[in-house]
Amino acid sequence: MTPARTLADLEELRALTGDENGAQRVAFTPTWAKARAWLRQKLEGLPVTAHQDEAGNLWVTLRGGTQKELWIGGHLDSVPNGGWLDGCLNVLAGLEILRTMAERYDGLPPVTLRLVDWADEEGARFGKSLWGSSACAGTLNLEEARKLRDKDGIPLPEAVAAHGIDFESALRCGRERIDAAAYLELHIEQGPVLLDLDLPLGTVLGTFGVERHAITFRGQAAHSGSTPMNRRRDAFLAAARMSPEIYAIAERHGGVCTIGSCTTKPGIVTSVVEECRLTLDQRALDAGALAAMYREAREASERFAAEANVSVAWERIWNIEPILFHEELRQMCDEAIAEVAGRGMRLPSGPLHDAAEVARSGIPTVMMFVQSLHGISHNKIEDTKREHLELCVQAFGRLAEKAMAWVQANFPEPRKPVPW
Amino acid sequence: MTPARTLADLEELRALTGDENGAQRVAFTPTWAKARAWLRQKLEGLPVTAHQDEAGNLWVTLRGGTQKELWIGGHLDSVPNGGWLDGCLNVLAGLEILRTMAERYDGLPPVTLRLVDWADEEGARFGKSLWGSSACAGTLNLEEARKLRDKDGIPLPEAVAAHGIDFESALRCGRERIDAAAYLELHIEQGPVLLDLDLPLGTVLGTFGVERHAITFRGQAAHSGSTPMNRRRDAFLAAARMSPEIYAIAERHGGVCTIGSCTTKPGIVTSVVEECRLTLDQRALDAGALAAMYREAREASERFAAEANVSVAWERIWNIEPILFHEELRQMCDEAIAEVAGRGMRLPSGPLHDAAEVARSGIPTVMMFVQSLHGISHNKIEDTKREHLELCVQAFGRLAEKAMAWVQANFPEPRKPVPW
Repeated sequence: MTPARTLADLEELRALTGDENGAQRVAFTPTWAKARAWLRQKLEGLPVTAHQDEAGNLWVTLRGGTQKELWIGGHLDSVPNGGWLDGCLNVLAGLEILRTMAERYDGLPPVTLRLVDWADEEGARFGKSLWGSSACAGTLNLEEARKLRDKDGIPLPEAVAAHGIDFESALRCGRERIDAAAYLELHIEQGPVLLDLDLPLGTVLGTFGVERHAITFRGQAAHSGSTPMNRRRDAFLAAARMSPEIYAIAERHGGVCTIGSCTTKPGIVTSVVEECRLTLDQRALDAGALAAMYREAREASERFAAEANVSVAWERIWNIEPILFHEELRQMCDEAIAEVAGRGMRLPSGPLHDAAEVARSGIPTVMMFVQSLHGISHNKIEDTKREHLELCVQAFGRLAEKAMAWVQANFPEPRKPVPW
Repeated sequence: MTPARTLADLEELRALTGDENGAQRVAFTPTWAKARAWLRQKLEGLPVTAHQDEAGNLWVTLRGGTQKELWIGGHLDSVPNGGWLDGCLNVLAGLEILRTMAERYDGLPPVTLRLVDWADEEGARFGKSLWGSSACAGTLNLEEARKLRDKDGIPLPEAVAAHGIDFESALRCGRERIDAAAYLELHIEQGPVLLDLDLPLGTVLGTFGVERHAITFRGQAAHSGSTPMNRRRDAFLAAARMSPEIYAIAERHGGVCTIGSCTTKPGIVTSVVEECRLTLDQRALDAGALAAMYREAREASERFAAEANVSVAWERIWNIEPILFHEELRQMCDEAIAEVAGRGMRLPSGPLHDAAEVARSGIPTVMMFVQSLHGISHNKIEDTKREHLELCVQAFGRLAEKAMAWVQANFPEPRKPVPW
């Protein structure tokens, strides 16, 4: 592994697809297409084949001694004004693994390796993340996705068609999974945990389960001057009283929660709030803890609503169960980190990643995190120390070696022609 | 006094200027002009003169034995889809007083009586209430009003010009005040206090002072999944923790307060709130209590902001001091109510009224409230029992008689020609 090549690739991609506000590789846009064309150029001279599947995922395959495949994934797409590492570090570290293994094994590694650039991990344009990986995992809901439009009113099916994707066939890319034996993903942490502990690298235990709801309190609008306090049915006040309790519930169960939005109707200075709508995002790695957080939050909302003589209604926006990564792969990741960086740690991932979709489709999966400076991503100030980037590429290469050996040991059948 | 005539007038005006959604007499619109033309027709046969002043207030004068004048006021304008009583009950009860006194004194009552229909009390079209009465009181800020536009972009000066008003001359209507000795206004309560106590009528102590502010908490946006709870600077959580305390402060000081609007930025389900803006409306009849409410609320906001490691800033939107009505007139109002209804009460007015502008210009003023059903106004369901409407017209007539005697006793100079 030659981490300097990955760093040079990252800088080159930044210059090509970023501007003074950050990365601009929003999926299904010309800049994203430019990034992919650049990646394909980077493959020249390597003994690989590349193709785009029905959902727009780009697959690069280095055939090896097994039919079973070791996958390495990431995503070139970014949010608007994004950081220079989120998603593309994964892809470019994977590219370095292909280059290294092709060199080391003279074009025929012991295990077939595939690098996948998932299409639209971020969901920045249509508000639906993990498009490509969920299509491959078979969990993509086409009915819902069909209705999505961007802020200019362009439907998702039309936007993807401009990039050679037939929306209605997207789920057919699930056949890519047939020979998958394991999946590895490297990612910046996007949070401050490794930074606070002064550790460069960590093994990801899994991704948090998420319960995402809208909570709507309904009271009665009334004039701010003429309505005595004891006659009011104040929807905002009920929501405000409840909110700290919801946070306390999350902390009690070792999870996290966020009230990200509060809207009020009629929302004018001279009226008691009739309707107050909050969004609540609760996350935990333990399914039981998450279920308890949700149940206790509902109970609290009903208690505070009753006290304020208002009603409360919950509406599920989205949810996903916690997804734990594969313990044998997690141990290999621990070892790779120990060998390269001396000391590591295990931590959960709060954000979702393509790896969660892959894992829940049944493919043994693990992720490695590298420290984020400022604990910030999705922003042009997103950054990681050079020395940590070099360490992560080295450690990720070690992990790939261990995983190749594991695939070889567990799925030893010889390579056969693909049936289609 | 013949209350049945007032009730018939109210019904006639409702049929002429309302629809299935309620009253539609928004100031400076054709329907409002139609209401005023109807009122002028109602004056035919009465020994009165009528003119519109520079701000568009309509004055009806019944000359009597004094140069000093007893004023009776109200407003024909309504909010869109308004109630059938708010504002026009005052004007039409005043009309009945003119009719009654013209009859009783054969065209020359002992005191000069003036009925004023204030222009645009509601401020429904331009968001600026008390236009006409504040122009007359000299408190109207022309610089601010000059910039106002309605939702179609029409400037206020242009809208009023269509109704014979020269915007730049509006403040000249202040000269109408020269001979004013006292001002009376009848109004529906618009709240539930009289209803809860089962009383038809009340004497208004004065109008609440108001402190109206925007409170903005600023923290740091952060990912809802990757940011540990102890690393967050959550602007919404600080605002939520503070809000019940602000309400407790108001109750402790005998005032009222309302957080009418809450907005959050970025306001998305997956981000900690970076900026949370509340509007706060605090009201009290006692100036010292109001000042304490404001001061303690600011202190509370700073305490909760510091605990949450966020900043807080206050911005004054508007304020007005409490305006107490004239004690001798309040006593006359108590007596009139006692004579007609047996038992009354004194209560403050939460909403502002034209009477507040008149009072703060130095003219002795009082208001009488009649019970509102549902405690609701600014809505087509606004209503008051027939029997209470009849009682209020009777009691308001008694109050006018008492006030005429008071004007006569206190300002006994004979009538002289007006100098212009």
